[in-house]
Amino acid sequence: MEAINLNDKYKKFNEKWSPHSIAELNGQQVLLAKVQGEFIWHAHEKEDELFYVVKGKLTIEFRDKKVHLSPGELLVVPKGVEHRPRAAGETWILLFEPLGIKHTGEKTTEITKSYYPKI
Amino acid sequence: MEAINLNDKYKKFNEKWSPHSIAELNGQQVLLAKVQGEFIWHAHEKEDELFYVVKGKLTIEFRDKKVHLSPGELLVVPKGVEHRPRAAGETWILLFEPLGIKHTGEKTTEITKSYYPKI
Repeated sequence: MEAINLNDKYKKFNEKWSPHSIAELNGQQVLLAKVQGEFIWHAHEKEDELFYVVKGKLTIEFRDKKVHLSPGELLVVPKGVEHRPRAAGETWILLFEPLGIKHTGEKTTEITKSYYPKI
Repeated sequence: MEAINLNDKYKKFNEKWSPHSIAELNGQQVLLAKVQGEFIWHAHEKEDELFYVVKGKLTIEFRDKKVHLSPGELLVVPKGVEHRPRAAGETWILLFEPLGIKHTGEKTTEITKSYYPKI
């Protein structure tokens, strides 16, 4: 049981769109990711997903709107809702979501991660 | 589905040790609290609890150690583990924990909140 420093954890990886796990609790996980560019449209059938921006700017596109997030802002994407995250510059995000969630929902593509390393 | 700005939410209340709910997902809740001084010893029988510091400094005491948290740092207190949060100066924290968790565990005292307002 030790303090987890987000900046220290972000130093441990550089790959974009590759979530890394820093904590687990109550069947949920806390993930960090560095993102830049555009992800793919996807939805998580059974899981709500929380996006929190630590550094940079994140846009989450929905089929009918866009939500812009700056550092200190979060958004919960409800289960089943199609979304596409994107970031013009390098952006550091924290995700909170259930263990076992699939990276790109029911789609599997060449960018899909099947495993989130613990750091 | 809108961006939630933590600083804007913190402006909505000033009472110390009174968690306010800003989001719910997957049976969990995201709470904000302003704390200063010493809370009481307690444990949550069935719930792990995540503490994240946004501003200020938080110490979480355990029976055998203390963990100090600065902004950008988090700690998960496992279920069943007695703990006592404290903060010398005003400190803003974010909590992530299951819906229905009891504020002071199985104890009820004059400081116990039975309801977390949504803001």
